[in-house]
Amino acid sequence: HLRLMYVSCLFPIQITVEDYEQAAKSLFKALLIREKYSKLAYQRFCRTTAQFLRSSQNMRWSEEDEVLPDMCPHPKDGEDPYSMENIPENLNYELKMKDGIVHVYDNAEAVRENRPRDLPYPDLETFAIDLSHVLAMIADGPTKTYCHRRLNFLSSKFYLHEMLNEMAELKELKSVPHRDFYNVRKVDTHIHAAACMSQKHLLTFIQKTYKTDADRVVLEKAGQKMTLQQVFHNLNKDPYDLTVDSLDVHAGRHTFHRFDKFNSKYNPVGASELREIFLKTDNFINGDYFARIIKEVAHDLEESKYQHAEPRLSIYGRSPDEWDSLSKWFINHKLHSPNMRWMIQVPRIYDIFKSKKLVPNFAKMLENIFLPLFEATVNPQKHKELHVFLKYVSGFDSVDDESKHSDHMFSFRSPKPEQWTTDDNPPYSYYLFHMYANIMVLNNLRKELGLSTFQFRPHCGEAGSITHLVSAFLTSDNISHGLNLKKSPVLQYLYYLAQVPIAMSPLSNNSLFLEYSKNPLREFLHKGLCVSLSTDDPMQFHYTKEPLMEEYAIAAQLWKLSTCDVCEIARNSVLQSGLSHQDKRHFLGVSYQKDGPEGNDIRRTNVAQIRMAYRHETLCNELSFIVDAVKSEEHLESSTQC
Amino acid sequence: HLRLMYVSCLFPIQITVEDYEQAAKSLFKALLIREKYSKLAYQRFCRTTAQFLRSSQNMRWSEEDEVLPDMCPHPKDGEDPYSMENIPENLNYELKMKDGIVHVYDNAEAVRENRPRDLPYPDLETFAIDLSHVLAMIADGPTKTYCHRRLNFLSSKFYLHEMLNEMAELKELKSVPHRDFYNVRKVDTHIHAAACMSQKHLLTFIQKTYKTDADRVVLEKAGQKMTLQQVFHNLNKDPYDLTVDSLDVHAGRHTFHRFDKFNSKYNPVGASELREIFLKTDNFINGDYFARIIKEVAHDLEESKYQHAEPRLSIYGRSPDEWDSLSKWFINHKLHSPNMRWMIQVPRIYDIFKSKKLVPNFAKMLENIFLPLFEATVNPQKHKELHVFLKYVSGFDSVDDESKHSDHMFSFRSPKPEQWTTDDNPPYSYYLFHMYANIMVLNNLRKELGLSTFQFRPHCGEAGSITHLVSAFLTSDNISHGLNLKKSPVLQYLYYLAQVPIAMSPLSNNSLFLEYSKNPLREFLHKGLCVSLSTDDPMQFHYTKEPLMEEYAIAAQLWKLSTCDVCEIARNSVLQSGLSHQDKRHFLGVSYQKDGPEGNDIRRTNVAQIRMAYRHETLCNELSFIVDAVKSEEHLESSTQC
Repeated sequence: HLRLMYVSCLFPIQITVEDYEQAAKSLFKALLIREKYSKLAYQRFCRTTAQFLRSSQNMRWSEEDEVLPDMCPHPKDGEDPYSMENIPENLNYELKMKDGIVHVYDNAEAVRENRPRDLPYPDLETFAIDLSHVLAMIADGPTKTYCHRRLNFLSSKFYLHEMLNEMAELKELKSVPHRDFYNVRKVDTHIHAAACMSQKHLLTFIQKTYKTDADRVVLEKAGQKMTLQQVFHNLNKDPYDLTVDSLDVHAGRHTFHRFDKFNSKYNPVGASELREIFLKTDNFINGDYFARIIKEVAHDLEESKYQHAEPRLSIYGRSPDEWDSLSKWFINHKLHSPNMRWMIQVPRIYDIFKSKKLVPNFAKMLENIFLPLFEATVNPQKHKELHVFLKYVSGFDSVDDESKHSDHMFSFRSPKPEQWTTDDNPPYSYYLFHMYANIMVLNNLRKELGLSTFQFRPHCGEAGSITHLVSAFLTSDNISHGLNLKKSPVLQYLYYLAQVPIAMSPLSNNSLFLEYSKNPLREFLHKGLCVSLSTDDPMQFHYTKEPLMEEYAIAAQLWKLSTCDVCEIARNSVLQSGLSHQDKRHFLGVSYQKDGPEGNDIRRTNVAQIRMAYRHETLCNELSFIVDAVKSEEHLESSTQC
Repeated sequence: HLRLMYVSCLFPIQITVEDYEQAAKSLFKALLIREKYSKLAYQRFCRTTAQFLRSSQNMRWSEEDEVLPDMCPHPKDGEDPYSMENIPENLNYELKMKDGIVHVYDNAEAVRENRPRDLPYPDLETFAIDLSHVLAMIADGPTKTYCHRRLNFLSSKFYLHEMLNEMAELKELKSVPHRDFYNVRKVDTHIHAAACMSQKHLLTFIQKTYKTDADRVVLEKAGQKMTLQQVFHNLNKDPYDLTVDSLDVHAGRHTFHRFDKFNSKYNPVGASELREIFLKTDNFINGDYFARIIKEVAHDLEESKYQHAEPRLSIYGRSPDEWDSLSKWFINHKLHSPNMRWMIQVPRIYDIFKSKKLVPNFAKMLENIFLPLFEATVNPQKHKELHVFLKYVSGFDSVDDESKHSDHMFSFRSPKPEQWTTDDNPPYSYYLFHMYANIMVLNNLRKELGLSTFQFRPHCGEAGSITHLVSAFLTSDNISHGLNLKKSPVLQYLYYLAQVPIAMSPLSNNSLFLEYSKNPLREFLHKGLCVSLSTDDPMQFHYTKEPLMEEYAIAAQLWKLSTCDVCEIARNSVLQSGLSHQDKRHFLGVSYQKDGPEGNDIRRTNVAQIRMAYRHETLCNELSFIVDAVKSEEHLESSTQC
């Protein structure tokens, strides 16, 4: 392919040498910080970036040093995905929450002696300092200028690449046998289980169910048991007459900048009873209907063969029983599908539980969320269902309206979770740190025991303060949305350099926070950020029977994306998903962990090698500037010392 | 609902009384001209508009005076759609083309005496004068100002209507039992048969066919018969390896403003052989594959139940045999579907046939197109297949790249078709007049004989000169595209006043002529023009399995259309389609021919009565200004005469 010959020249970017060096140093440090937290939690860190970081430290990067997540493969054909055989024995460890983080002890004596097992326990102070470093640099003038100019350069460079190589990329793809956009794997990495079916699907399901189950007792309200018929009678509705209009679960003009209105769209016919009956796992009918409808969605994915999804189920932290209930629901209804893995979303609604006196402090909420996971890890015999369910869980999400303002500023002086007893909700960063901290300890414990690890993949940058994106840069394997990266060139450039995956949902944004035409997805893709497409809530946002395809189709139409573009997006979605190593090898090629064209099997991904080479060379070029600056400074320092 | 109380006040529109009267007079005359040509050809003319025209002439409008098209109903269950029984006898009429228009004579003697039957035969001079009247007025300053201001007013008024009544409309729709956007009828009124399947569908069809038919002789090239295997061998392709990329039938960035490149996308793998084999009705295998794939599309529509389509098939005018061949294809392959009717598209490519010496002059081309239809009408026994096929034909389209410039200016001095012997292509208006003229005579003849009539529904205003839209205003029942109405306020206002239906395809435009965000559909809809959505070419433009739903979904998403908006669009699509009176009664309600809320059955259309009332009142208001001006002037004139 035609190369852009001048790309390694820094001079067109008019910036003084001092500014450049200061910027590079800051960026370098930020990358090191992310790398540290990623490694600690067994989350992925871009291999190319790591290689450059090592080279600047005059170290050799080696594959053995790489820290990787462990995802359970799906059971092979014929194996029972719910098998409770071979569940490990009780380790008789003791568990105790301290400063909002679960600590693991060998035994009661170790607890008394305050001698936890040798696992990394992060502390709030260090984290707060690291966070403040990155916070400071995103406001630093020279760094902003440098990043802004590099990002503009990346845009223009891609534009040139397109003009020079577009036809060559297409030619490459045309010669790939039997592989096109329709049969490359796509993962819907961000989709809420309670809205994973289309509005029409939910409607049909309700009507179908009513035909057979009108007399089934489905709800207990104020001590009174009610049949489906009675429920509809009380709502003054005949299910046969229901329509998508009266169901009223679709977003529209009225939900724009109204997250509250949007949230109420989860109630079919505006009735929380129907949400309770049809869209909950833990209700009078043990989530039977919800399980059935999800199995229908799974069936459609399996039929499509090439589409996968990671539906997000809620754990609230109201009570420690939630996990057992959720995993029993999963096992009893046999919800495993080879085309699905699961995400756990934790709504940031401590304030609500506190005001209802369900929890005394924030630590209790964290305990309710995380302690059961540690228990199931050290004593799976006592939590068999949870132990099995966790095999199919990719990771955790932190979710709620990001535009809500918090009065508290997270810092090393912030109260510890046990002391967080006010009615106010902790800020976003506080949530993120404590979720990360527990996931990190848990992952280390599980890795030690040969169990699967979890990714932290919060909603981040959909709205609200830019600090959210800083916290996620430190703590998260990948994020959902990321719209606010538009507003900070430094953060955007950091997300680029570290190749932090971003699952974007422009149709969701279009109904809630940002008009489609203003969505930065195309711009991010051009610059080389690792973006993918996901649906968020098909029930609220999509119209057709194939929501993920609708999401891709609209993006392709409006932004005139090429086949190579959409296949690159699809490949990114697989990479950032919680699919197992085995699945990723199968879907992307045996060397998928390598960066650049080497790691790309075009016969599986349909992404042109020209594109892969362009991306890789470009990233290496950007990283080399940083490393060169850091090295030359070190050289200067060491020679001054001499 | 909340009414806008000031709507009948003209004063906010700052314009002098003289200008207003001149504009009104011109618009009035233009509407009378359209009405004349519509009635002559049994095409629809908006009833409300007709009523106002009559009232200004101090006449009473009556339903009996209304001229309506006649569309054959679909055969009832159990009836044979291809039945050749009860075909009328030969009338022994004589037919002769004169000045490019087929004339009908009682017998040979009448031919000799130049005494055609008493049917209206339009003449080019009158038409040219009428055309020049409308052409002059669209450039008239005061008329432009008046129309521009009225259109702005219509926009603002709708905006107010929306703010006042949006929730009330939604409430109305929510109370409609069992009817929502998904189960209102939608007709894809503009879709080319050769591209009516998605790219993926075509690909799968080719692969499936190859598995069973590799050894079938499918092509004769240069005297040599070739099997499907040989064809693919010569192309150096293995059908199993084919992908949508190598099929290369999808439009993209490269087709924007390149109609030539777009046209070549009809050739799968860039090979005209595959187009010949899979997408033609008249080939070595008698269009077998094309028929099969269209039947699959029809099957999908029938499954969807609420979606209909009117695929467009080509008649070129190269030879008089085309009609017999096409209708035999239809009958032999049993292509009737209750969810389909057919359109005939005539490409404007006289210049190509002339340069290849296939026709000596333009009249011969017209004769090849229209004479067989007249023959089948007066002597159906001799053209049984065509007689049956015509039952399911809605009408005619004139199609080609409108952006091509023509040197000739159509006027009353233009040569008659027999004298059009140059190699140059006649201009758009010349084509339109001669197609209209023949359809008009044919419709009158068929009406007399109790046979179905045809609509003229050309591609118009997709690109090129604004005069195209003037010609269509006179001659066409409805048009496809209409983008250029953006450029002429007078024409846009005329299309509004006469409620000329416009089938718009924003996704097609997005790939060819106009970016989606600049498409005027939403603006037209707001003002109250009668717009609908159609796909044009799913093979080139769409991604999902339901192209029409994709078209609606994208429009709804990007323009944040309400349920009422999309249902109004769907209703418009049924109204302007060639579905039979019986079907329309069934799909829209028994009074669908009445304008305003009276004509709307909300239980079938899901269009709010508030919306219908708004549209009707607004149109009446606009028309009343015109009529008032004309009347006051008449009053003035008559009092001056006294």
